[in-house]
This record gives sequence, C-alpha cells and structure tokens, in this order.
Amino acid sequence: MSPRQELIRQKLIRQELAAAIFDEVGALTRDEAGITREAYGEGEERAMQAIERRAALLGLAAERDRFQNLWLRLPEDSRAEPPVVIGSHLDSVPRGGNFDGLAGVVAGLLLLDALRGQAMTAPPLRVLALRGEESAFYGKACIGSLALLGQLPASALSLHHRSGRGTLGEAMARSGVDVDAVARSEALLAPAEIAAYLELHIEQGPVMTARDWPSAVVTGIRGNLRHNRIRCLGEAGHSGAVPRWLRKDAVLAVAELLSRMDEHWRVLLQMGMDLVMTAGICTTAPESHAVSVIPGEVSFSFEVRSQDSATLERFYELFREECRTVATSRGVRFAFDACLASPPAVMDAGWIGCIEAAGHARGTSVEQIASGAGHDAAVFANAGVPSGMIFVRNANGSHNPDEAMAIGDFADGVDLMLKALRKAVPSKISTCPHALA
Amino acid sequence: MSPRQELIRQKLIRQELAAAIFDEVGALTRDEAGITREAYGEGEERAMQAIERRAALLGLAAERDRFQNLWLRLPEDSRAEPPVVIGSHLDSVPRGGNFDGLAGVVAGLLLLDALRGQAMTAPPLRVLALRGEESAFYGKACIGSLALLGQLPASALSLHHRSGRGTLGEAMARSGVDVDAVARSEALLAPAEIAAYLELHIEQGPVMTARDWPSAVVTGIRGNLRHNRIRCLGEAGHSGAVPRWLRKDAVLAVAELLSRMDEHWRVLLQMGMDLVMTAGICTTAPESHAVSVIPGEVSFSFEVRSQDSATLERFYELFREECRTVATSRGVRFAFDACLASPPAVMDAGWIGCIEAAGHARGTSVEQIASGAGHDAAVFANAGVPSGMIFVRNANGSHNPDEAMAIGDFADGVDLMLKALRKAVPSKISTCPHALA
Repeated sequence: MSPRQELIRQKLIRQELAAAIFDEVGALTRDEAGITREAYGEGEERAMQAIERRAALLGLAAERDRFQNLWLRLPEDSRAEPPVVIGSHLDSVPRGGNFDGLAGVVAGLLLLDALRGQAMTAPPLRVLALRGEESAFYGKACIGSLALLGQLPASALSLHHRSGRGTLGEAMARSGVDVDAVARSEALLAPAEIAAYLELHIEQGPVMTARDWPSAVVTGIRGNLRHNRIRCLGEAGHSGAVPRWLRKDAVLAVAELLSRMDEHWRVLLQMGMDLVMTAGICTTAPESHAVSVIPGEVSFSFEVRSQDSATLERFYELFREECRTVATSRGVRFAFDACLASPPAVMDAGWIGCIEAAGHARGTSVEQIASGAGHDAAVFANAGVPSGMIFVRNANGSHNPDEAMAIGDFADGVDLMLKALRKAVPSKISTCPHALA
Repeated sequence: MSPRQELIRQKLIRQELAAAIFDEVGALTRDEAGITREAYGEGEERAMQAIERRAALLGLAAERDRFQNLWLRLPEDSRAEPPVVIGSHLDSVPRGGNFDGLAGVVAGLLLLDALRGQAMTAPPLRVLALRGEESAFYGKACIGSLALLGQLPASALSLHHRSGRGTLGEAMARSGVDVDAVARSEALLAPAEIAAYLELHIEQGPVMTARDWPSAVVTGIRGNLRHNRIRCLGEAGHSGAVPRWLRKDAVLAVAELLSRMDEHWRVLLQMGMDLVMTAGICTTAPESHAVSVIPGEVSFSFEVRSQDSATLERFYELFREECRTVATSRGVRFAFDACLASPPAVMDAGWIGCIEAAGHARGTSVEQIASGAGHDAAVFANAGVPSGMIFVRNANGSHNPDEAMAIGDFADGVDLMLKALRKAVPSKISTCPHALA
C-alpha cells in the first residue's frame, strides 16, 4: 500500500468511526420527531455516557469536572500545560437535529484518536464536551461554558424550566453539578489556563449550501442589540372617513420605518459591512384592530446583529433616528422597552490565518463566514482565550429534525482543523505528518 | 318685532327643540359608557317611541311600515304622490354616540314642523326613521333600507348576533317585523315611488373640523374592495444565521408592499383622485413568531375605498401587480381570500347643485366632501332614487361616546337643507318663504 493509499484508508476509517458515533448517540436520544438532549437532563446524560464509552474503547482518558462537563485527553497528557481545547456541546433543543453540538465533540474525539500513540503536541490537545449550550429549556445559553469560567450569574440557577416545573439549579444538582460552587461563581478554570479554544460546528444558516462551501472559517460571532417590544402609537379611526392627510396610521408608519431600514441594510452590505436585521414579531392590537379601522397601534420586535460593535451601535442609532423621522412625518409615537445587548465575539486572527493557510496548503480556499448564532466559542473569546471556529456545511438550518450534514463534509472540516493545528502547533505535530494527513 | 328678529327667534326655537329631542333620546338610551340603540333591540325601540311621542306633540302623523321603520308626515299629506324622503337611522353601535343617525331623523322632524300648517310642497316631504343601519350587532349594514326596497338577502335573517346568541330574523320578529315578507324579498316601496332621498348626517371623520366647515355637501359614498385576510408566505429561519440575500422575510415583504401602495396613494391624491387605503389588521403568526426568528408568515387585511368605481378597480389591480412584484423580488408568495366588493354610490348632481346654490344664496360656500362611511343614502342611490346628503361637522369621529356635534352646526345643516329644498321644489315652498327661512 502506497503512502497515498494509506492516507485514503485512514480517512475512510475516520469517516466510518464518526458515522458510527453519530448513529449511536442519535439512536440513544431520539424522540417522536427528532433528537432531544435536554440541558442537564436525560438525553444529554446519555450522550455524555456514549462519548465516555467511545473514549474508553479508543484508549483515551475521560473525566468530568465538578460542573459535569466532560474532558477527554490522551493518556500521556499529564495536564501540566495549558491545552488547546477542542470543544462543543452535547445538549440539543427539543426535537432538534443530531449534529448541532455533537459534531464538534466527535471532531475532537477523532483528532485525539489521530494523535494517540504519537509524540505529544505542545500545547497538548484536550476535548471538552460542554453541557447546556442551548437556551431552549431554561432561557439561558452557554450555561456550561459560563459556569466553567465563573461567569454564570447565581440568579440563573433560579431560572424556570420551559414547562414551568423545576429550576436550572435543581436540574444541575440532579446531574451531579457542584451547585454551591456555581452559586458562588467559582471558576474551575482561568482563561490563562487555556492556550486556545477551537470549535467545529455545523452552519445554522443556508449560506454554505448556497455557495457550495464544504467548510468555512468563522471570523466572529455576531453580537446583537435587541428590543423585544416596541410600540408604534398612532390614532385609530374610521377607515373610510379619515383622509390621508389626517391619518396617524401605525401600520403604514412601521412599514415605512422597516422599509427604510431594509434599504439602509442593503446599502451597508454593499459597502462591506457585516449586518443582519430582523423584525420577527409585528402585530396590530388584537383586542381592537379591525379591517375597517385605521390601525392605531402596532407592536414589533427589532434585532440587529453584527460582528462589529461599532456597526451594531451605529445601525441601532440610525434606527432610532429613523423612528424619530417617521414619528414626525406621520404623527405617531414610538415607545421602546429596554434595549438588550450581547457583545460580538472576535475569533483570533492567528487561528483564522492558520485555518486559511491549512486550506491553501491542501489546494482549496477556505471562505470566511460570520456566525449569526451564538456559540460557546464566544464565551471563551470574550474571556480572552484565543478562539477559532470551523463551520461545516449543513442543509435545512438547525434546531429542527431536518438538519443535514454530509459525513464527507464533516471529514473535510476535521481534516481542515488537523491541518490548521499542524500550522499553529508545529513543534511536535509536524514530526508525525502521516498521522494527521 | 322685525321680520329679521322673527327669523332669529324661530331659529332659536328650532335649536332648543332639537336639543331637547337629542337630550331625551340620549337619556333613554344611555349605557355605562355612551349610547346603545341596538338594531331591532331595546334602545332602538325606545328611540322610535320617543320620536313618535314628539311627532304627536308637534301634530305630525306617524306610522310604522310592516318592517317597523317609522314614517312621519304632515297630516294634510294624503300620500298620493311620491315624496321627497328625509331619512336616517335610529340605531347605534354599542357604546356609540348620540348623533350618528338620530341627527338626520331630528332634522326631518324640524323640516316637517317648519312646514306644518303651510301650503303642501309638491312632491310632499316625508321623514323616514330607519332601523338597523349599523353592522355592529349582526355584521350587516343598512338592514332597514335594504329590506324596505326588497334587497335584503333572505340569508341575512340567519346572521348571528355578535354575542353568538340569537339571529337577526329572531330579533326582527320580536320587533314586530313581517319576517316572512322580508324572507321573500318583498319590497314595501319601489324606487319609483320615492321622488328623492335626502339625509343629514354627522361627518364621521375629522375633515370638516380640520377645515372649519360647519356643513358640507356629500358628492358620493365611497365603495370599497376588501380582503379580510391576505397571507404573505416567506420562509422562517435563524435571525442571525441567514444573510439578507437568502432571506424570504414576510414582514419586510409586506412592509415594502404597503410602503409602495402608500406612495402610489400619495401620488394619486395629488392627481386629484378620491382614494383611501387601509391595512387595519397586520400580524405575524402568533404560534411560531419569535424575536430571533425571521418571520415566515404575515396575515393582513387590505381595503381600498373610492367614490369612483374605475379608481377602485384600477388601484386594486395596481395592488395585485405590486404583490406580484414583491413576491418575485423577495421570494415570498401571497395567498388571497375572497375579494369583497361594495359599489360606490353617487349623489344626485341636481341635489348637489341645489345644496351648493342654497349655500351660495345665504352667502356661504358649501364645500364638497366624499363619505367614506356607508349610509342608507347609498342603498337608495344605487336603487335609482335621486339622493343627496348633507354632512354636519362633528369632532372625535363617530362610533364612540366622544362624538361631538355643536347644536349650532346642526341648525346650520338643517337650514341648508331647507334652502336646498326651496331651490329644488320651488312650486309651493317658494310661496311661504318665511316658514322656511
């Protein structure tokens, strides 16, 4: 067998191994419609145990931290040095898909397996399977990573389950989490104790499918500014009896406002800015609206996301300015609830460069993409840990049973991460290129 | 007392008489918030009886037809000739105002009173107090006038009360209506048996207050084309993860559509067309919308009103064309329910001319206005009866307890109608000008 044939054989074996893990965890956490791995619940625990069993079979060391996150390492890793962490999460939304989160953990497992028995890298690689990244069950995202870094507010423990029964703190306690330590914001790890955080994740939008990119490098994780409810207050009136010049039509006011913002959005994209804008909720007042009544009130949500803080803030200011303009010209008033902010996270330029260089080295260009959805990587990046993400193409979005990642695309992403690690951690990985090819 | 002083005295007496009737009927039909005179219900019946009592006091003949509409005439009117009918309605919406409908009946009463004992006009004047003009209780407007002309569909008798309990047919029967005759569409009167139909009504919009017109002549009653529910179907998606070029955002699509139509409306008004446009209901899907989800569906109503059939139809076609344009450019689809049509009614040019000439004769110009709201006058006009309407200034719109007509403006409108009658029916009224001054 030639070295090239050997490489192809190893790739196939890795694909089969990955497919087997996906199948096993999927089968263990199937519900009536899709996949449910509830944060600090039954499905998540089953997935944790399946990964632990698989790690044991592959001869990897596994242990849980006091917050019940799962760590995997090579047996020869003495844990003396800050590691490069390959992480993602094992929980899912209710009736979700099999790959959101799990793909990143399986990628880590394959990377460790590829390094098993080889000379240790420096810094060493470790895999982190986090809990509770999805906000679907308790309304709070990235619980596992925030707790790990001592950043989960104690108040989060009182958050109620979506069913109304039980709290996050109770579920964490049932899962074996040291809830007292979480409550006093004890960090199990300081940011300086992690050399880097890398995450492979399926794309949750349609861009890569549309553009035919199997892998892409994430430049940043968009932050957002958000109003859950803005009220546009005009004046109700008889739809036949009030002429245009005396109307204060809240629907037409909001339509003009959103059309103006949509046009600004279009132009700013053309100018190269990173921006998405959404009014997901928009409704006239159900208790008083009628076909023949000029709408006197509209409630709507407004969200803007960007990788860039300045873009976020300026676009939001533009929005408020357009609200004032429309209010003046149409005789309406806008009443705002609190503006909620999540800061954007920037992926490490060095790691972005490594991932791009790795693609270049294998003869394919790796396109850049912003992550619109949140990820644990944002928590590590905003804590000061150099972080990087690779997205893998995935059809039909995520958070639904139809998410669809081809195993070949997954292998392509894992291969890209391997090659990027080789660029970034050259000292020892480069001594055993065949194992990482 | 000089003739001029005598005229002023008579005017004051008429104002006091009108105010007394408004007060009496208002007191009899007051509810916890405003006025309720339910179609074929208690409040309407009380108002009918109050008008009957007042007619008796004034020496006028009163009788009800088989559909329980009330007719008033001078005792010397032998009912041999087709009359000029001065009509309006006595019912109201729930928690409405005191003048919507009642003002026109009281105007008729004052006109007959002014003619009492004078030489008969030819054609003679009669007052018609109609029932059930408001659609608020049974979802059907102009029930009394439609039934009178044999135009009420038998199916309307099965319409349910807004409470869900009882039908229109049952309420009519309780009121003493010959429901069998209504069911077989028996006309109590042929259009040819009415020389003209005149109605004085409060304005239900803010135009006359804004423009400082105490009275105005109605040119026509707007018809409308209406969809109660159009669905704009786009594609839901993660608000962060889907870029602008791959979105099918139903809210932004409807916002663009309505903004385009609003701009067309503005331009067409500038070009002199009569037009109002309203999307009174507009809402994302309550079961699935969310702040962080691209809205996949919006339901909205769309109504266009105009005095001119061609304007109505062409603007509607423009709307459908813009729907197609937006659908193509934004990848959404519009699903339409049935388009409901009410034809516009044109007021008689001769009567418009008489009313304008009457204003001119007393040294004030009478401005033209279109009625956006429907009226019994539209039923008569569309049946071929030459019809005319005078609007009286009224603050705060109608269909609410705050409607506010000044008694001086009412007297001004009655005076205008008297003078218009003198222009139109010169043969005998002109022989007794002092009675009608």
